[in-house]
Amino acid sequence: MHLLTKTPLSEQLKPLVGKPVSAIDTPSLVVDLDAMNRNLARMAEFAKKHDVRWRAHAKMHKSSALARLQMQAGAIGVCVQKTSEAEAMAAGGVHDIYISNEVIAPAKLARVAALAGRLATENGKLAIAVDSVEGVSRLAQAMNDSRTSGGNPISIDVFVEIDVGQGRCGVAPGSAAVALVHEIRKHPALRFAGLQAYHGKAQHVRSAQERRDLIAIAAQDVVFTRKLIEAEGVPVELVTGAGTGSMVCEAASGVYGELQAGSFMFMDADYAANERDPAQPHFEHALFVKTQVISSGVQHAVCDAGHKSHAIDSGLPKVHAPDDAHTLNYFNGGDEHGILRPAGPGIRVPALGQMLWLIPGHCDPTVNLHDCLIGVKGGLDTGKVSRIIRVDARGALT
Amino acid sequence: MHLLTKTPLSEQLKPLVGKPVSAIDTPSLVVDLDAMNRNLARMAEFAKKHDVRWRAHAKMHKSSALARLQMQAGAIGVCVQKTSEAEAMAAGGVHDIYISNEVIAPAKLARVAALAGRLATENGKLAIAVDSVEGVSRLAQAMNDSRTSGGNPISIDVFVEIDVGQGRCGVAPGSAAVALVHEIRKHPALRFAGLQAYHGKAQHVRSAQERRDLIAIAAQDVVFTRKLIEAEGVPVELVTGAGTGSMVCEAASGVYGELQAGSFMFMDADYAANERDPAQPHFEHALFVKTQVISSGVQHAVCDAGHKSHAIDSGLPKVHAPDDAHTLNYFNGGDEHGILRPAGPGIRVPALGQMLWLIPGHCDPTVNLHDCLIGVKGGLDTGKVSRIIRVDARGALT
Repeated sequence: MHLLTKTPLSEQLKPLVGKPVSAIDTPSLVVDLDAMNRNLARMAEFAKKHDVRWRAHAKMHKSSALARLQMQAGAIGVCVQKTSEAEAMAAGGVHDIYISNEVIAPAKLARVAALAGRLATENGKLAIAVDSVEGVSRLAQAMNDSRTSGGNPISIDVFVEIDVGQGRCGVAPGSAAVALVHEIRKHPALRFAGLQAYHGKAQHVRSAQERRDLIAIAAQDVVFTRKLIEAEGVPVELVTGAGTGSMVCEAASGVYGELQAGSFMFMDADYAANERDPAQPHFEHALFVKTQVISSGVQHAVCDAGHKSHAIDSGLPKVHAPDDAHTLNYFNGGDEHGILRPAGPGIRVPALGQMLWLIPGHCDPTVNLHDCLIGVKGGLDTGKVSRIIRVDARGALT
Repeated sequence: MHLLTKTPLSEQLKPLVGKPVSAIDTPSLVVDLDAMNRNLARMAEFAKKHDVRWRAHAKMHKSSALARLQMQAGAIGVCVQKTSEAEAMAAGGVHDIYISNEVIAPAKLARVAALAGRLATENGKLAIAVDSVEGVSRLAQAMNDSRTSGGNPISIDVFVEIDVGQGRCGVAPGSAAVALVHEIRKHPALRFAGLQAYHGKAQHVRSAQERRDLIAIAAQDVVFTRKLIEAEGVPVELVTGAGTGSMVCEAASGVYGELQAGSFMFMDADYAANERDPAQPHFEHALFVKTQVISSGVQHAVCDAGHKSHAIDSGLPKVHAPDDAHTLNYFNGGDEHGILRPAGPGIRVPALGQMLWLIPGHCDPTVNLHDCLIGVKGGLDTGKVSRIIRVDARGALT
């Protein structure tokens, strides 16, 4: 990055395309596009085999270019968590967007309504989640206040979020959800589209059996709630949820019609630490921080990637070795440094200038630190830079 | 943030200026400019009183506008950790810059040399740290390869980094540092400027006495090394180091001539958790994440700020209350959510839409998540937006 110019970083990095991997400056966030494409193909095949839709969660990559790639691979559209992410996706040509989160601020709901109107004119669609009566009525108000240029009302698909074990947003399964469905149906601009039932906590439970148990309970909660709603004569068209950690369970449940998995595309160190469910496709690490040693001593070396280069909320990064050899341990060296120590006797401290590849602990907030991803084909050793991918929703928080 | 346009966020936010605090969208990073200015004045007064220079560390705020403000308040210049940060500061009108870190990559050293040349033409100065013979010779090579337009060699100030207890970069105090000084003096383009002796670990040691003990040892290491260097007839002009946590110790040491403290300007929850040294000026919290409740239940509420809004490497944020009342605890809700629970019996779960202010655990990586800071005057309750501050070195990693 060369900040003496005001040229966007994505433009500054364009000359890298076609250059060998060795030309990539450090620290940089690099995508192994071959591995990523294999992950995408495996996910698309998995969803097809289980007859479920796959709506990729764009909160992970925050890139409309990657969202379009996912849709080419078979995704029906994207999920996002934020209104501004939805706007960035729409601006980048993605027209089927689901805000799988609650939006409450009237100013933001006005933007939601405007975006729904815009997407409708592009044969697209916007959906959103709710978990309160107040949220439903604020949303309805915003939709009523926003009309097409022809003066017609705009409608939006609304999912009722139920808490199936995450302990975060969502109403309790059962009658509270039924009440919200009735509330939604009072407003002509709102169309009840189904249930949001994501179990975030289950994603990172290490034991495959425990994940199966948790999602079995979640599916029971969904079935119970769906029955109550359908007993009122209202069909529940779709149940949406699941992430990379648990998706095989939701896919096999017969209850979930849509998977929201996103992280499988890059696979971080935390997801890789889960016991793999035999039913899970093999997903490869595709996201790396390229770093180099800037200081080397007798006991340890220091590389130029700290937690301004990669998020450490789900643990420190692993040092990648081509043959999966575990030679170096990464220790926290603060915002700008990583400390590297040999993983066992007889292993040398890496030398000054040595290039290393880190597998981030958690891909979502790691990508959010970077304005661009550098896409490589042909492997991390002898490959070449193939494309520069803008993270166009980086920092989109509102 | 409205990403349907390509207008930079700082321009998009301009209309906020003059508006009440209530108009700020969530989550946003907000600076209480009154508190910040008081912190700056106290720091400048402290440095003056102790007859030490103050070179603010811009890795914290990554904003050339704030760097200029610090220099108006009395800072001699800035420190940075990265070449690209130095470039951003220079582009933003800051002309006295010290890269208090090792730079090893030849392509980056060429940029360092180019920047040194540019700053020299602007009556400015660039300095850099080294901790290896190889680093010195690479730097000298880059300086020799880069000449002014008139063909004259460009020189750069070089600090030898010694490890005074941080256990990261730096050579051991003593003869290794002397050897590096000799190495530097072999190259006419390099000017030995002194010792870099920052004790990062001491900053976050809770006990004031333990911090004093650690810095006393660091100062001994510095004195020992300085004596060895000066015994060779080479003056050690300056010893630079210190952070917000330990600065009173370095200032009183009689050894350090320059303080690099930066975080005091914003004061995060982690620094506030230190036992305050009686000699330390009173620094106030000046950095806040404005957030709002998007889901509210019986046991807990959920706000729209997770660790994509604030860094959690040094702990979760605290919920700010105007009278310092501890009413709500913040729990990790993932990338986009925070979970809020009453801190004791009789305290209500906050209602849907309620606005809250979080004090981030660690200011440096928190600022690095945001493209802009929203500067407020007149307090967080009844104040107004005074200015939008671009974080122009946000994401500057290389």
